[in-house]
Amino acid sequence: MSKTFQVVGIGNAMVDVLSHCDETFLAEHGIEKGIMQLIDMDHARHLYDRIGPAQEISGGSAANTIAGIAHLGGRTAYVGKVKDDQLGAIFAHDLRAQGAQYDTPRAPAGMQEETGRCFVLVTPDGERSMNTYLGVTEFLRPSDIDEALMAQAEWIYLEGYRFDGEESHEAFAKAISAAKAAGGKVALTLSDPFCVERHRDAFRRMIREDVDLLFANRAEILSMYETQDFGEALSRAAAEIEIVACTESEHGAHVLSQGQRWHAPALPTRVVDATGAGDLFAGAFLWALCEGYDLPSCGRMGCAAASEIISHIGARPEADLRQLFAARGLV
Amino acid sequence: MSKTFQVVGIGNAMVDVLSHCDETFLAEHGIEKGIMQLIDMDHARHLYDRIGPAQEISGGSAANTIAGIAHLGGRTAYVGKVKDDQLGAIFAHDLRAQGAQYDTPRAPAGMQEETGRCFVLVTPDGERSMNTYLGVTEFLRPSDIDEALMAQAEWIYLEGYRFDGEESHEAFAKAISAAKAAGGKVALTLSDPFCVERHRDAFRRMIREDVDLLFANRAEILSMYETQDFGEALSRAAAEIEIVACTESEHGAHVLSQGQRWHAPALPTRVVDATGAGDLFAGAFLWALCEGYDLPSCGRMGCAAASEIISHIGARPEADLRQLFAARGLV
Repeated sequence: MSKTFQVVGIGNAMVDVLSHCDETFLAEHGIEKGIMQLIDMDHARHLYDRIGPAQEISGGSAANTIAGIAHLGGRTAYVGKVKDDQLGAIFAHDLRAQGAQYDTPRAPAGMQEETGRCFVLVTPDGERSMNTYLGVTEFLRPSDIDEALMAQAEWIYLEGYRFDGEESHEAFAKAISAAKAAGGKVALTLSDPFCVERHRDAFRRMIREDVDLLFANRAEILSMYETQDFGEALSRAAAEIEIVACTESEHGAHVLSQGQRWHAPALPTRVVDATGAGDLFAGAFLWALCEGYDLPSCGRMGCAAASEIISHIGARPEADLRQLFAARGLV
Repeated sequence: MSKTFQVVGIGNAMVDVLSHCDETFLAEHGIEKGIMQLIDMDHARHLYDRIGPAQEISGGSAANTIAGIAHLGGRTAYVGKVKDDQLGAIFAHDLRAQGAQYDTPRAPAGMQEETGRCFVLVTPDGERSMNTYLGVTEFLRPSDIDEALMAQAEWIYLEGYRFDGEESHEAFAKAISAAKAAGGKVALTLSDPFCVERHRDAFRRMIREDVDLLFANRAEILSMYETQDFGEALSRAAAEIEIVACTESEHGAHVLSQGQRWHAPALPTRVVDATGAGDLFAGAFLWALCEGYDLPSCGRMGCAAASEIISHIGARPEADLRQLFAARGLV
């Protein structure tokens, strides 16, 4: 294929506000451990006044995936909305500086909502609990989807989280038709078990009709198929999707396609901050797939990239992932 | 003493923009390695467009020192100017969340200049080269100095960098008289050898008349006394200042006072990012001094705090410094 982009991602554009806290803080503030909760601007201000010193790093689930692909040298672009404010400038800089194309029109400075941010509270065990203020990223509209850009993508990569928000379903539908009409394929990530609960019907319809590659973790795929039987959930997904790539934390990842199934082990790593592990798994997997690697190799590169991400604060790669892959004989 | 604050710091309030680069990048952009250069807004935009992905962490030399004192449980406050913008909110949050008082009036949103930022370019050897856009922090005026606050300080801590900017000398003079009139003492940090070159006469006058404790590193004190003889520079400083605390990178720190001299060894540490080592040396030293520890112990705690800071990205402590001191039998 000679398309301009290997992967074009669409998701919630936001800056992560990373801070450490203990379990007591989570309990006192009604924050459910390990998942993502949506909060409004007032709640965001209230929470920010109470958390400890923080650091700001560009995040956003699909944006992390796209940054990973760009880091690996892949041809990639991103669609997601920030405001014309300082956090928006930070988000745009970090994505472009990594080598991704990013041209989504910014929401004007006059809007009351600001660039979205995600309070990532890291507990001593390295687990992250997320409270997300979507801000302007909620207002990604069909008019923000450039059909010509979608037509130039081998893959479009859709973030499940982006289903939270007005007009997002229409925006995704527009992106999917433009990509498919030009022979492109569609990858979806389920994002979060509670996100699956909010949008199960829409996800199921999309999976039946359009999705060629599904990314999920164990909790998400269980929620998707409303079962407690992991094997059953994997089989049901594999029966309706060309490729299924499902992570299972320290147990690595499972890749299923057309009757075959592979397992990629997780690499032993001291977990400093689990933020972005799934995002970078997807990034490395997609990059490897576009570069023509077989599916088991895609799974192994996904696990290797995830292990790098969880070894430090922040959801964007710090070490050279290609060197890491080379050291393990993967490239 | 029963003053409200052990230390009140005055300095340039800014957010650090941390990014990794190689030596070639420094050379190509005329950035002198290991020092701080001032740049204007246009230059800052130009540079930001060219650096790699970054992360934002509150910084500012004296603010790091004050954050360190607050982290140790000291009673401390900070004076420095940010704007009523998102970076200003980040700076204020991080300092208060650490436990420091911070009430300097913000520059209004309408101003053209923004909250100051310091581009910290970290090379693979862990050395940091800084390009600073001062922004609104340059406009700290005598009217921003609250004399009642200065009178409530056992020590005021003055950042040499803050001499760059309009009306700053008057602001420092006002702070010094208010503190001294109430029986407080004055600490000064020389900040940077080029900063010493720009303000040598003013620093000398201040040292002669007002400074009770001088913080410097080897290059700064050599520049201060215009000599290449380190021993001579230390002796000359010790002859005119009650306490001199001078760091010497991997050779640790020298403390001189009233004819006595001690050496505190540096702790062996892998240097990830040297940003803030001197700031946290000063923070731990001042905290220990206010808590009544003897000068050799102050020096050792300074070195231990510095070793924690250089072991990670960012200039604010991540590990518990008191635990670190306790593990070394220092507290």
